[in-house]
Amino acid sequence: MAEHLSQSELDYPFKLLEYFNGFRVSKVIFSACELGVFDLLLKSQEPLSAQNVARELSTSVDGMERLLDALVGIEILEVETTDGAALYSNSDVANLYLARGSTKSLHDMIIYQSQNIYPLWNNMVDAVREGKNQNEKTFGLPSEDIFQVIYRSEPEMLKFMCLMNSSWVLDGPDIVTAINLSSFQTIVDLGGCTGALAREMAKAYPSSSVTVFDLPQVVDMAQKHFSQENDAVVFQAGDFFSGEVPPADLYILARIIHDWPEEKCLILLKKIYNTCKPGGGVLLVEAMLFENRRGPVMAQLFSLNMLVQTEGRERRPSEYTHMLNTAGFQNIQMCRTGKSYDAILATR
Amino acid sequence: MAEHLSQSELDYPFKLLEYFNGFRVSKVIFSACELGVFDLLLKSQEPLSAQNVARELSTSVDGMERLLDALVGIEILEVETTDGAALYSNSDVANLYLARGSTKSLHDMIIYQSQNIYPLWNNMVDAVREGKNQNEKTFGLPSEDIFQVIYRSEPEMLKFMCLMNSSWVLDGPDIVTAINLSSFQTIVDLGGCTGALAREMAKAYPSSSVTVFDLPQVVDMAQKHFSQENDAVVFQAGDFFSGEVPPADLYILARIIHDWPEEKCLILLKKIYNTCKPGGGVLLVEAMLFENRRGPVMAQLFSLNMLVQTEGRERRPSEYTHMLNTAGFQNIQMCRTGKSYDAILATR
Repeated sequence: MAEHLSQSELDYPFKLLEYFNGFRVSKVIFSACELGVFDLLLKSQEPLSAQNVARELSTSVDGMERLLDALVGIEILEVETTDGAALYSNSDVANLYLARGSTKSLHDMIIYQSQNIYPLWNNMVDAVREGKNQNEKTFGLPSEDIFQVIYRSEPEMLKFMCLMNSSWVLDGPDIVTAINLSSFQTIVDLGGCTGALAREMAKAYPSSSVTVFDLPQVVDMAQKHFSQENDAVVFQAGDFFSGEVPPADLYILARIIHDWPEEKCLILLKKIYNTCKPGGGVLLVEAMLFENRRGPVMAQLFSLNMLVQTEGRERRPSEYTHMLNTAGFQNIQMCRTGKSYDAILATR
Repeated sequence: MAEHLSQSELDYPFKLLEYFNGFRVSKVIFSACELGVFDLLLKSQEPLSAQNVARELSTSVDGMERLLDALVGIEILEVETTDGAALYSNSDVANLYLARGSTKSLHDMIIYQSQNIYPLWNNMVDAVREGKNQNEKTFGLPSEDIFQVIYRSEPEMLKFMCLMNSSWVLDGPDIVTAINLSSFQTIVDLGGCTGALAREMAKAYPSSSVTVFDLPQVVDMAQKHFSQENDAVVFQAGDFFSGEVPPADLYILARIIHDWPEEKCLILLKKIYNTCKPGGGVLLVEAMLFENRRGPVMAQLFSLNMLVQTEGRERRPSEYTHMLNTAGFQNIQMCRTGKSYDAILATR
């Protein structure tokens, strides 16, 4: 992420000013997404004026014009100006990742970041001071049970599930093939939410059976809003903390470990170990920190994200090794994908 | 700012994800600034552990460690690890621009951005929809008079004045010499706040007399908190909208025009024109948009900032020319500095 902050930064701190503007750039894209700018420009078969966009989306012309121009500046939109009249259209990147229609759309991830994560980060100073999440200060909700906060209403639950669903669009295919998992016949994705990663798994390993295991209300919602015809995965309701986990050859914990402190992770990993047959395994999917603390920036930022929203953190390879060994697992393989999430496989 | 969003972005949108993380990177730096991390590391003559920093600044160790590591990731801090123990120190950039002591410190600008601007931008969707500032939604304050909001309490007024003071640290020297102003004997900086830019002016043109003209409560505060021994500038209290402007050869309006809609700007510019002698002038200092709408990104973002906080906007060269001509001014010279703010001189 960071270009090297060299001597020339000392003369004039361009990079630093870019960092200061980071929140503005995020919110420019997020706001356009929330207002439906990219959807409208994708649907429209021709470039549109700011007046047109503003009318269609019921916004002020002045505000929309400034937003569109900033999106041109950061090369998310394109503009052509003829006789002083500016006409805007989506870049290919906007069509593919920001508009709602595309299979690679990150729209739902953006909505959650804009409406939930951005305000949480406004309390980062307190999160660092107190060493705990800021759900109470941000949303006025008690922070004892983080999923009671995240699932506090049906719309909020759906918004979070949309986030999870949309986040595997990018990294799902790399994650499921990072380590060869074809020897595992039955696979259970614990906390598998909408089934997005499980379906990638079923696609990569068509001879395996893949089950999504999650809380009853999550399974209900998944079947109501994210079900597919001839779905390659099945759903099973349960609670992996208070109940048992179903038998399987491979358990997936994708972005589960990072929600919890080590004690709780160990309880879960030991439960999985005890249910596992010899040769069975667990696949952790997380944004793994470098052992030397120097990155990846994305994982470091996610770790602060976990601080402000959950009870967990991102971890270094040695921390995963330690936890997995403590739970009884051996033969640990780690694969960095070079993207946001990495894969860690351990077997009994 | 933007590297070109090329074909490779379509394969995996690294740059887009960096934009999504923008708000996190901003808040990492802002939070460290608010907590005093850079000040402590500057004061300490040796690298410090996270435990040490946390103890000195009364924060959690866990939260501080994550924050420090993220600052290493974006190359604002440096880390050395010996026997697993990490010791952190400021980069040169952090010492120069982020710690409080340095004459080039941007600390006060950061505090204002973190505590006031970041929450305002959380309501950007509404600002674009309504075409007006979001002071009411963000701070619960009526938005009729923007400076009643900005100056709503003595601490808020001081915080804003600190912001203004700190923002000329970077661009002040370039702005005052962008256009040769040595022919003007008496210079009045209208809305000159703490006098930071006026002092740069006095330094560059030692044979000119420089007066800072601002609201009585601003002048009071400036003299209480920002006065200097043998100050090169004098202060005069007044209201350039409701009252007269003092006689001068050159009037400076630095980041004043961008606060207001065109009608109000024209009232002010005409008042200045009428007080001006032939040969007298007005110097506008603003972040000037490109005529073709394609940038600079900084000015485009500032224009959205003006939307969410004020009644004004940033403008293109043709808009300044039009306003200045309408007020009666001629001989317009514009100089882009290539940094954040540009200079526009017009004479009667």
